[in-house]
Amino acid sequence: MLSITKGQVIQTALPQPPKPGLSAEAFAPSNIALCKYWGKRNAELNLPVNASLSISLGDLGSRTQIQPADEDQVWLNGERLAPESSFSRKVISFIDLFRRGLQQPVRVDTQNTIPTSAGLASSASGFAALMLVLNNFYQLNLSTQQLSAFARMGSGSASRSLFNGFVEWHKGHRDDGMDSFAEPLSQTWPGFCIGLLKLCTTEKKVDSRAGMQRTLESAPLYQAWPTQAAQDLQTLKQAICRRDFTRLGETAEQNALSMHATMIASWPPLLYWQPESVAAMQRVWALRAQGTEIYLTMDAGPNLKLLFQEADRGAVMSVFPELQAVDIVAPFD
Amino acid sequence: MLSITKGQVIQTALPQPPKPGLSAEAFAPSNIALCKYWGKRNAELNLPVNASLSISLGDLGSRTQIQPADEDQVWLNGERLAPESSFSRKVISFIDLFRRGLQQPVRVDTQNTIPTSAGLASSASGFAALMLVLNNFYQLNLSTQQLSAFARMGSGSASRSLFNGFVEWHKGHRDDGMDSFAEPLSQTWPGFCIGLLKLCTTEKKVDSRAGMQRTLESAPLYQAWPTQAAQDLQTLKQAICRRDFTRLGETAEQNALSMHATMIASWPPLLYWQPESVAAMQRVWALRAQGTEIYLTMDAGPNLKLLFQEADRGAVMSVFPELQAVDIVAPFD
Repeated sequence: MLSITKGQVIQTALPQPPKPGLSAEAFAPSNIALCKYWGKRNAELNLPVNASLSISLGDLGSRTQIQPADEDQVWLNGERLAPESSFSRKVISFIDLFRRGLQQPVRVDTQNTIPTSAGLASSASGFAALMLVLNNFYQLNLSTQQLSAFARMGSGSASRSLFNGFVEWHKGHRDDGMDSFAEPLSQTWPGFCIGLLKLCTTEKKVDSRAGMQRTLESAPLYQAWPTQAAQDLQTLKQAICRRDFTRLGETAEQNALSMHATMIASWPPLLYWQPESVAAMQRVWALRAQGTEIYLTMDAGPNLKLLFQEADRGAVMSVFPELQAVDIVAPFD
Repeated sequence: MLSITKGQVIQTALPQPPKPGLSAEAFAPSNIALCKYWGKRNAELNLPVNASLSISLGDLGSRTQIQPADEDQVWLNGERLAPESSFSRKVISFIDLFRRGLQQPVRVDTQNTIPTSAGLASSASGFAALMLVLNNFYQLNLSTQQLSAFARMGSGSASRSLFNGFVEWHKGHRDDGMDSFAEPLSQTWPGFCIGLLKLCTTEKKVDSRAGMQRTLESAPLYQAWPTQAAQDLQTLKQAICRRDFTRLGETAEQNALSMHATMIASWPPLLYWQPESVAAMQRVWALRAQGTEIYLTMDAGPNLKLLFQEADRGAVMSVFPELQAVDIVAPFD
């Protein structure tokens, strides 16, 4: 069977041509996965091997505007990008999926409210915000499930950045991926904190897309990942229902380290950690051994994200003074 | 079914009582696994989940003497150990397995010829040398297969330290473990070099035995390890037959990192790496990216072992000046 293209999926969902737009603006939050997305079962549509679960970062994210222009223009944080840049081309080709035959150049402006010092990827919030403005701009009237499924085609984890709080991205089973979308959980958790610990500014040599691909193709240990991820997701949902922070933290940390383990077991070895990452991990474990409930999670990079509760903020900040106050959010405050 | 004890295995193999001995002396080399032993299917007998393959380190190892004495005494590198020390108790209880009813205290002297700076564990060579002296001292007339299987009951990897060169430890299937012994491969490989890179002197908090146990019990990714190890072993044996250094190096490095991956995916996380380990790994990969065929392997600790060929010794030593000349052996010279 031939793989379905993004364009075919959108054509089927949106048989009517888009209407020319005036302008639109939207915000989408960044998110941190507690159960990681690692591995695509379909690279064209960004369909995941496993379901995942994240927490959104409140007002840290991307704010995007779109308006008609004389020629296509992509602006990021106030600077116009070269049309041939990778980011610009990704944005324009995503717009083309919805613009289709319409002859209307646009200007897209994105401001990331994530401090550069946070070491967070912005593609999730960026594509989620872009999807929201396209929906308004072209009057597509998409459902939240469609918005999430389409944002996923821009960047997998963008499917989760359309919502606040805890968000589950369903794996889905359909070939066209329309059942692979994210939904927010109903539970809230006052006092739940995340700290962003930026350790290293060197750009990563292997991006997530290439990293996932290498892991799938070369790491025998990856065979055990989908089952673990499915189990971890259930455990995390239970822990959120019960506000069991220990269970949540342990599961999220083991899930993240297991994802890194599959990378380390790849060939060539894929190690996103720097010496500073190991030193910071040891600091987390030492603090935890002293009785402070703190857990770590990491994505495809050298930086750590710390999970803790409001009551422990002082203890955490004293051991991690470089964890800037702005980097800590309690998404449900 | 009740598990068979070490004592029962030895009683069955050696129905005759031991003969009082005069004195004996033996040497056994240290060994470095290219396909790692990680996981016991039977903790009493040290029966492994997977077969493994190692290379012995020539004259780096343990030299042990035994002689009658007024009371049991264990000496290590010229110093008498306290009878209640962990090492002393392990040695005496291993001797008791063979001494059985015999009322003859002994003095055991072990000299490790492994420089302390090499960061190598000495239990493999230590128990192999001890097994050899016990065989002579008590005139047990054991076959090499029996010697290896019994040394395994002292320390799993000791089964491989009875031989020089490349050594395969068969997994075995019997409940009494007597088919789980090591044998040397017939192939030699002139110019094959190993460098020992000691990075860190802090004692590890979790020994191999406890580490294996934790991995088995808590790391879902471990489920994929036995199949990978079996495949790696076959690939390594082929590479040795063909003297295909690239294949051997790649397989040994991925095998070692996959073993560490199973530890990292355990709970609590088991990370034997220090920041210095990551820095050294990056140096190995940078040197390899420049065209020098160098690979790394690591055991349950922070130090690296480097695999390379004689022709590249100069390039390797220039990047790793701390790799002392004495730490490099070409086992078949």
